This record gives sequence, structure tokens and C-alpha cells, in this order.
Amino acid sequence: MPDADQMSAVIDAYAACFSAADKDGWLALWADDATMEDPIGTPLKKGRGEIGEFWDQSQGMADSIKIIPGDLRVIAGDEVAWSGEIRPTMGGTEFVMQVIELWRFTDGPDGAPLIAEMRAFWDPAAMRPA
Amino acid sequence: MPDADQMSAVIDAYAACFSAADKDGWLALWADDATMEDPIGTPLKKGRGEIGEFWDQSQGMADSIKIIPGDLRVIAGDEVAWSGEIRPTMGGTEFVMQVIELWRFTDGPDGAPLIAEMRAFWDPAAMRPA
Repeated sequence: MPDADQMSAVIDAYAACFSAADKDGWLALWADDATMEDPIGTPLKKGRGEIGEFWDQSQGMADSIKIIPGDLRVIAGDEVAWSGEIRPTMGGTEFVMQVIELWRFTDGPDGAPLIAEMRAFWDPAAMRPA
Repeated sequence: MPDADQMSAVIDAYAACFSAADKDGWLALWADDATMEDPIGTPLKKGRGEIGEFWDQSQGMADSIKIIPGDLRVIAGDEVAWSGEIRPTMGGTEFVMQVIELWRFTDGPDGAPLIAEMRAFWDPAAMRPA
């Protein structure tokens, strides 16, 4: 069973890597066979290859994207639910959307938790200038 | 596919019925074969009978329980993620916990959306006086 503090640290690392455009650091947080649905309703990405393509597409759509977890993160077993903000900057303007994320973890080869499943609830239509 | 405004109205009705201790009104929001995991990590309740037992146990543990949805609710397809507060009053003292809920809806017999699956992320250890 993944450790709660380590799971929480992965959320912070995820946000830090995404915000710093550190693709390798970000990809290292995922299990090899992880799945991602971001946002809900889009096709499921399976495995680090497709998840890496998601990174390229996402980062390509914006000058930069900040992810800012809020104070609310509930860890239960191998799952965590957290809410926060996605702040893309496009054409020099920063926008903001609220997000609720559901993650499931698995133990990585060295025992540290890796993201096995990620589902992100946010609505592109709710994006507004920050 | 359930209607987004109707799904959102079910969240408000759920909170209103729970806060008003209206068991019949609350039970009517669920599909017959719905499942509930509240909080995550506890045994899954299956069907309106077991969900009704959950009601009796929950309401029996407190003088009253208010559920207060926050502003954040993201509707995607037949799913909704929302966050808010659970405020039980026990022994005359009101407590508060934050919650993230994940719901999936199904179309009811009259076309109105019913809750088919509910997963509630909250941590009993995080309860504090309001």
C-alpha cells in the first residue's frame, strides 16, 4: 500500500514538474501502464507513451501551464482526491480553471508510489482570465 | 445522457434532504441498484436497502448533519465531481470536514437523472470543531 505522505508528495512533484515544463520529471511519476483521462470525456491515454504525447499537446497549446493544488486533498488507501487550479498562459494572458483530480497509485519498483490511474474533472468552457 | 442542469439540481436536493433529515426524499434520488462508498475505504453499499441503512447509521451518529456543496462542481457526461463540507453536530457541537464527491448518474424511469454510483472522499480523522 503506498504511503500517504509519499502520495501527497507526488501531487506536489506533479504540479512542480508541470509548471516548470519538466517533462522527464513529470513522466517519471507515472507507472509504465498508467491510464489518464484529462479532462473527463476525452479519449483515455494508456501507458507512458500516450501520456507523453498528452504532455506535448498540452504544453504546445499554451505559453506555459501552472498547476496549483489547493489545500483539499483526501487520501484513502491507494487513492487520492484533490482540487486545485489549472492556470494556462496563452498569448500572454493567464487563464484559470478549477479542477478536481482523482488518482490511484501503485507501488513502483523501488517501493515509491507511482500514478496508476488519473481522472481529471475540469471544464474547458469554464476557463476565464485569471 | 442525463441533463447537466438536472444533475446539478440533484446535488442541491441531496444536500437539502440530508440537512433536513428527509430520508424518503433523499432515497428517491438514488437508482434502485445504486452503489455507494462513503467514505472511501468502507464497505460498498449496494441498492436502496443498504443505502437506507447507511442513512440510519449516519443520522443516528449525530444530532444532525448538514451537507454544504461548495461552488466547485464539474459535470462531464454522466459524471459529476464536486467538493463541499460535511457539518455534523454531535453533543451540541458542530464539526466540519471537507469532502470531494464523485457521482455517476443514470436516467430514471421518468427520464430524470438518478444517482447510480457515489464515492465520497473525506477523512474522519480530519474532523474539527466548526
